[in-house]
Amino acid sequence: MDALMRKTLLLSSLALFFASAIATAAVKPETAIRYRQSVYTMIGWNFVPLVKMMKGEAPWDSATFARHAERIASLSPQLLEGFPEGSDKGAETEAKPEIWQSMDDFKSKMDALVTQSRLLADVAKAGDEAKTREQFKKTAGACKSCHDKYRSEE
Amino acid sequence: MDALMRKTLLLSSLALFFASAIATAAVKPETAIRYRQSVYTMIGWNFVPLVKMMKGEAPWDSATFARHAERIASLSPQLLEGFPEGSDKGAETEAKPEIWQSMDDFKSKMDALVTQSRLLADVAKAGDEAKTREQFKKTAGACKSCHDKYRSEE
Repeated sequence: MDALMRKTLLLSSLALFFASAIATAAVKPETAIRYRQSVYTMIGWNFVPLVKMMKGEAPWDSATFARHAERIASLSPQLLEGFPEGSDKGAETEAKPEIWQSMDDFKSKMDALVTQSRLLADVAKAGDEAKTREQFKKTAGACKSCHDKYRSEE
Repeated sequence: MDALMRKTLLLSSLALFFASAIATAAVKPETAIRYRQSVYTMIGWNFVPLVKMMKGEAPWDSATFARHAERIASLSPQLLEGFPEGSDKGAETEAKPEIWQSMDDFKSKMDALVTQSRLLADVAKAGDEAKTREQFKKTAGACKSCHDKYRSEE
Protein backbone atom coordinates (compact mmCIF):
# COMPACT_ATOMS: atom_id res chain seq x y z
CA MET A 1 0.00 0.00 0.00
CA ASP A 2 1.53 3.33 -1.00
CA ALA A 3 1.38 6.51 1.05
CA LEU A 4 -1.35 8.16 -1.03
CA MET A 5 -3.63 5.13 -0.78
CA ARG A 6 -2.99 4.95 2.95
CA LYS A 7 -3.93 8.63 3.30
CA THR A 8 -7.06 8.22 1.18
CA LEU A 9 -8.20 5.28 3.27
CA LEU A 10 -7.57 7.17 6.49
CA LEU A 11 -9.57 10.17 5.28
CA SER A 12 -12.44 7.93 4.18
CA SER A 13 -12.52 6.23 7.56
CA LEU A 14 -12.47 9.58 9.34
CA ALA A 15 -15.28 10.92 7.17
CA LEU A 16 -17.38 7.84 7.89
CA PHE A 17 -16.62 8.10 11.60
CA PHE A 18 -17.63 11.75 11.83
CA ALA A 19 -20.69 11.28 9.64
CA SER A 20 -21.91 8.58 11.98
CA ALA A 21 -20.95 10.65 15.04
CA ILE A 22 -22.95 13.61 13.72
CA ALA A 23 -25.93 11.41 12.96
CA THR A 24 -25.86 9.84 16.41
CA ALA A 25 -25.24 13.03 18.34
CA ALA A 26 -28.23 14.66 16.69
CA VAL A 27 -30.81 12.29 18.10
CA LYS A 28 -32.16 13.06 21.55
CA PRO A 29 -33.61 10.12 23.50
CA GLU A 30 -37.09 11.68 23.54
CA THR A 31 -36.94 12.17 19.76
CA ALA A 32 -36.02 8.51 19.21
CA ILE A 33 -38.78 7.40 21.61
CA ARG A 34 -41.36 9.52 19.83
CA TYR A 35 -40.15 8.22 16.50
CA ARG A 36 -40.31 4.53 17.39
CA GLN A 37 -43.75 4.95 18.97
CA SER A 38 -44.87 6.55 15.70
CA VAL A 39 -43.67 3.55 13.69
CA TYR A 40 -45.57 1.22 16.05
CA THR A 41 -48.67 3.42 15.80
CA MET A 42 -48.54 3.26 12.01
CA ILE A 43 -48.05 -0.50 12.08
CA GLY A 44 -51.01 -0.82 14.47
CA TRP A 45 -53.19 1.39 12.25
CA ASN A 46 -52.53 -0.96 9.35
CA PHE A 47 -52.83 -4.08 11.51
CA VAL A 48 -56.39 -3.35 12.71
CA PRO A 49 -58.12 -3.92 9.34
CA LEU A 50 -56.21 -7.23 8.98
CA VAL A 51 -57.36 -8.39 12.42
CA LYS A 52 -60.95 -7.49 11.53
CA MET A 53 -60.78 -9.61 8.39
CA MET A 54 -59.10 -12.46 10.26
CA LYS A 55 -61.91 -12.41 12.85
CA GLY A 56 -64.66 -12.06 10.25
CA GLU A 57 -65.64 -8.64 11.62
CA ALA A 58 -65.01 -7.22 8.15
CA PRO A 59 -65.50 -8.99 4.82
CA TRP A 60 -62.33 -10.53 3.39
CA ASP A 61 -60.88 -8.18 0.79
CA SER A 62 -57.61 -9.36 -0.73
CA ALA A 63 -56.66 -5.99 -2.22
CA THR A 64 -57.18 -4.13 1.05
CA PHE A 65 -55.36 -6.85 2.97
CA ALA A 66 -52.42 -6.68 0.57
CA ARG A 67 -52.22 -2.88 0.72
CA HIS A 68 -52.03 -2.80 4.53
CA ALA A 69 -49.67 -5.78 4.65
CA GLU A 70 -47.32 -4.04 2.20
CA ARG A 71 -47.24 -0.99 4.43
CA ILE A 72 -46.46 -3.08 7.51
CA ALA A 73 -43.66 -4.82 5.61
CA SER A 74 -42.20 -1.48 4.63
CA LEU A 75 -42.55 0.02 8.15
CA SER A 76 -41.05 -2.90 10.07
CA PRO A 77 -37.44 -2.34 8.92
CA GLN A 78 -37.73 1.27 10.15
CA LEU A 79 -38.26 0.30 13.80
CA LEU A 80 -34.75 -0.60 14.90
CA GLU A 81 -33.21 2.85 14.36
CA GLY A 82 -35.68 4.12 16.98
CA PHE A 83 -33.76 2.27 19.69
CA PRO A 84 -30.36 4.02 19.82
CA GLU A 85 -28.12 3.58 22.86
CA GLY A 86 -29.36 5.81 25.69
CA SER A 87 -33.01 5.90 24.61
CA ASP A 88 -34.14 3.56 27.40
CA LYS A 89 -35.35 6.72 29.15
CA GLY A 90 -36.06 10.35 28.30
CA ALA A 91 -39.82 10.10 27.78
CA GLU A 92 -42.61 7.70 28.69
CA THR A 93 -41.73 4.40 27.07
CA GLU A 94 -42.87 0.79 27.26
CA ALA A 95 -39.48 -0.39 26.02
CA LYS A 96 -37.79 -2.43 28.74
CA PRO A 97 -34.13 -1.65 29.60
CA GLU A 98 -33.40 -5.32 28.77
CA ILE A 99 -33.46 -4.30 25.10
CA TRP A 100 -30.13 -2.50 25.38
CA GLN A 101 -28.65 -5.29 27.53
CA SER A 102 -29.60 -7.93 24.96
CA MET A 103 -29.35 -5.93 21.74
CA ASP A 104 -28.31 -8.95 19.63
CA ASP A 105 -31.38 -10.90 20.70
CA PHE A 106 -33.60 -7.83 20.24
CA LYS A 107 -32.20 -7.36 16.73
CA SER A 108 -32.84 -10.98 15.85
CA LYS A 109 -36.47 -10.57 16.95
CA MET A 110 -36.73 -7.44 14.80
CA ASP A 111 -35.24 -9.36 11.87
CA ALA A 112 -37.91 -12.03 12.37
CA LEU A 113 -40.63 -9.37 12.14
CA VAL A 114 -39.07 -7.91 8.99
CA THR A 115 -38.93 -11.38 7.40
CA GLN A 116 -42.43 -12.50 8.43
CA SER A 117 -44.12 -9.23 7.51
CA ARG A 118 -42.41 -9.25 4.09
CA LEU A 119 -43.66 -12.80 3.54
CA LEU A 120 -47.14 -11.69 4.58
CA ALA A 121 -47.13 -8.82 2.08
CA ASP A 122 -45.98 -11.15 -0.69
CA VAL A 123 -48.45 -13.94 0.05
CA ALA A 124 -51.29 -11.43 0.45
CA LYS A 125 -50.44 -9.90 -2.92
CA ALA A 126 -50.65 -13.36 -4.48
CA GLY A 127 -54.23 -13.45 -3.20
CA ASP A 128 -54.63 -16.91 -1.62
CA GLU A 129 -56.79 -16.41 1.49
CA ALA A 130 -55.81 -19.63 3.31
CA LYS A 131 -52.07 -19.01 2.89
CA THR A 132 -52.50 -15.38 3.86
CA ARG A 133 -54.32 -16.37 7.05
CA GLU A 134 -51.54 -18.79 7.92
CA GLN A 135 -48.81 -16.22 7.31
CA PHE A 136 -50.73 -13.58 9.25
CA LYS A 137 -50.50 -15.79 12.34
CA LYS A 138 -46.74 -16.14 11.93
CA THR A 139 -46.39 -12.37 11.61
CA ALA A 140 -48.52 -11.75 14.70
CA GLY A 141 -46.35 -14.34 16.45
CA ALA A 142 -43.24 -12.32 15.60
CA CYS A 143 -44.84 -9.22 17.17
CA LYS A 144 -45.86 -11.15 20.28
CA SER A 145 -42.49 -12.84 20.75
CA CYS A 146 -40.80 -9.45 21.05
CA HIS A 147 -43.57 -7.78 23.10
CA ASP A 148 -43.60 -10.65 25.63
CA LYS A 149 -39.92 -10.17 26.36
CA TYR A 150 -39.19 -6.50 25.77
CA ARG A 151 -42.41 -4.51 26.16
CA SER A 152 -43.73 -3.47 29.51
CA GLU A 153 -47.48 -3.17 29.01
CA GLU A 154 -49.41 -1.29 31.67
CA MET B 1 -80.82 -5.64 -17.22
CA ASP B 2 -82.42 -8.83 -15.93
CA ALA B 3 -83.66 -9.38 -12.40
CA LEU B 4 -80.71 -11.54 -11.31
CA MET B 5 -78.15 -9.00 -12.51
CA ARG B 6 -80.10 -6.23 -10.80
CA LYS B 7 -80.08 -8.21 -7.55
CA THR B 8 -76.37 -8.99 -7.83
CA LEU B 9 -75.55 -5.34 -8.37
CA LEU B 10 -77.69 -4.31 -5.42
CA LEU B 11 -75.99 -6.85 -3.13
CA SER B 12 -72.54 -5.70 -4.28
CA SER B 13 -73.41 -2.09 -3.60
CA LEU B 14 -74.75 -2.96 -0.17
CA ALA B 15 -71.62 -4.96 0.69
CA LEU B 16 -69.42 -2.05 -0.38
CA PHE B 17 -71.56 0.37 1.62
CA PHE B 18 -71.38 -1.67 4.79
CA ALA B 19 -67.70 -2.45 4.39
CA SER B 20 -66.97 1.24 4.17
CA ALA B 21 -69.36 1.99 7.06
CA ILE B 22 -67.58 -0.58 9.26
CA ALA B 23 -64.19 0.84 8.33
CA THR B 24 -65.29 4.39 9.10
CA ALA B 25 -67.17 3.59 12.29
CA ALA B 26 -64.11 1.85 13.69
CA VAL B 27 -61.89 4.92 13.74
CA LYS B 28 -62.17 7.17 16.78
CA PRO B 29 -61.09 10.80 16.26
CA GLU B 30 -58.24 10.44 18.80
CA THR B 31 -57.00 7.34 16.99
CA ALA B 32 -56.94 9.16 13.65
CA ILE B 33 -55.19 12.15 15.24
CA ARG B 34 -52.54 9.95 16.81
CA TYR B 35 -52.10 8.13 13.53
CA ARG B 36 -51.62 11.22 11.38
CA GLN B 37 -49.23 12.74 13.93
CA SER B 38 -47.23 9.52 13.72
CA VAL B 39 -46.97 9.78 9.94
CA TYR B 40 -45.74 13.38 10.29
CA THR B 41 -43.26 12.33 12.98
CA MET B 42 -41.86 9.63 10.69
CA ILE B 43 -41.65 12.06 7.78
CA GLY B 44 -39.86 14.55 10.04
CA TRP B 45 -37.42 11.90 11.28
CA ASN B 46 -36.45 11.18 7.67
CA PHE B 47 -36.45 14.86 6.71
CA VAL B 48 -33.85 15.92 9.32
CA PRO B 49 -30.86 14.16 7.69
CA LEU B 50 -31.83 15.70 4.34
CA VAL B 51 -31.94 19.19 5.83
CA LYS B 52 -28.50 18.63 7.42
CA MET B 53 -27.05 17.68 4.04
CA MET B 54 -28.77 20.60 2.34
CA LYS B 55 -27.26 22.98 4.92
CA GLY B 56 -23.82 21.36 4.80
CA GLU B 57 -24.11 20.29 8.46
CA ALA B 58 -23.57 16.72 7.32
CA PRO B 59 -21.50 15.52 4.34
CA TRP B 60 -23.51 14.91 1.19
CA ASP B 61 -24.24 11.20 0.89
CA SER B 62 -26.39 10.25 -2.10
CA ALA B 63 -27.28 6.77 -0.84
CA THR B 64 -28.42 8.04 2.56
CA PHE B 65 -30.31 10.90 0.92
CA ALA B 66 -32.06 8.49 -1.45
CA ARG B 67 -33.00 6.07 1.34
CA HIS B 68 -34.68 8.76 3.45
CA ALA B 69 -36.31 10.37 0.40
CA GLU B 70 -37.78 7.01 -0.60
CA ARG B 71 -39.30 6.63 2.85
CA ILE B 72 -40.82 10.11 2.72
CA ALA B 73 -42.27 9.34 -0.71
CA SER B 74 -43.82 6.17 0.63
CA LEU B 75 -45.16 7.82 3.83
CA SER B 76 -46.73 10.87 2.17
CA PRO B 77 -49.64 9.00 0.53
CA GLN B 78 -50.52 7.59 3.96
CA LEU B 79 -51.28 11.00 5.50
CA LEU B 80 -54.71 11.74 4.07
CA GLU B 81 -56.52 8.81 5.70
CA GLY B 82 -55.55 10.35 9.05
CA PHE B 83 -58.01 13.19 8.45
CA PRO B 84 -61.44 11.52 8.47
CA GLU B 85 -64.56 13.63 8.96
CA GLY B 86 -64.96 14.46 12.67
CA SER B 87 -61.27 14.27 13.56
CA ASP B 88 -60.91 18.04 13.83
CA LYS B 89 -61.09 17.48 17.59
CA GLY B 90 -60.78 14.63 20.08
CA ALA B 91 -57.15 15.09 21.07
CA GLU B 92 -54.56 17.86 20.90
CA THR B 93 -54.10 18.66 17.24
CA GLU B 94 -52.49 21.38 15.15
CA ALA B 95 -54.84 20.61 12.27
CA LYS B 96 -57.05 23.64 11.63
CA PRO B 97 -60.83 23.09 11.25
CA GLU B 98 -60.50 24.76 7.81
CA ILE B 99 -59.18 21.40 6.53
CA TRP B 100 -62.63 19.81 6.70
CA GLN B 101 -64.29 22.95 5.29
CA SER B 102 -61.93 22.98 2.29
CA MET B 103 -61.27 19.25 1.85
CA ASP B 104 -60.82 19.50 -1.93
CA ASP B 105 -58.11 22.13 -1.55
CA PHE B 106 -56.50 20.19 1.29
CA LYS B 107 -56.47 17.04 -0.86
CA SER B 108 -54.88 18.90 -3.74
CA LYS B 109 -52.11 20.10 -1.40
CA MET B 110 -51.63 16.51 -0.21
CA ASP B 111 -51.48 15.36 -3.83
CA ALA B 112 -48.77 17.97 -4.47
CA LEU B 113 -46.72 16.55 -1.58
CA VAL B 114 -47.16 13.00 -2.88
CA THR B 115 -46.02 14.10 -6.36
CA GLN B 116 -43.07 16.22 -5.24
CA SER B 117 -41.77 13.70 -2.69
CA ARG B 118 -41.98 10.92 -5.28
CA LEU B 119 -40.00 13.07 -7.71
CA LEU B 120 -37.46 13.73 -4.94
CA ALA B 121 -37.02 10.02 -4.24
CA ASP B 122 -36.55 9.30 -7.95
CA VAL B 123 -34.10 12.14 -8.60
CA ALA B 124 -32.14 11.29 -5.42
CA LYS B 125 -31.88 7.68 -6.52
CA ALA B 126 -30.45 8.84 -9.85
CA GLY B 127 -27.71 10.52 -7.77
CA ASP B 128 -27.32 14.01 -9.29
CA GLU B 129 -26.69 16.35 -6.34
CA ALA B 130 -27.68 19.61 -8.06
CA LYS B 131 -31.01 18.21 -9.31
CA THR B 132 -31.67 16.62 -5.94
CA ARG B 133 -31.10 19.94 -4.17
CA GLU B 134 -33.50 21.66 -6.57
CA GLN B 135 -36.20 19.02 -6.09
CA PHE B 136 -35.71 19.06 -2.31
CA LYS B 137 -36.72 22.73 -2.30
CA LYS B 138 -39.88 21.96 -4.27
CA THR B 139 -40.77 19.20 -1.83
CA ALA B 140 -40.17 21.43 1.20
CA GLY B 141 -42.32 24.02 -0.58
CA ALA B 142 -45.17 21.50 -0.80
CA CYS B 143 -44.92 20.91 2.97
CA LYS B 144 -44.86 24.65 3.69
CA SER B 145 -47.76 25.47 1.40
CA CYS B 146 -50.04 23.17 3.39
CA HIS B 147 -48.65 24.08 6.83
CA ASP B 148 -49.08 27.81 6.16
CA LYS B 149 -52.76 27.36 5.47
CA TYR B 150 -53.87 24.39 7.54
CA ARG B 151 -51.50 23.96 10.48
CA SER B 152 -51.81 25.97 13.64
CA GLU B 153 -48.28 26.11 15.04
CA GLU B 154 -47.97 27.16 18.66
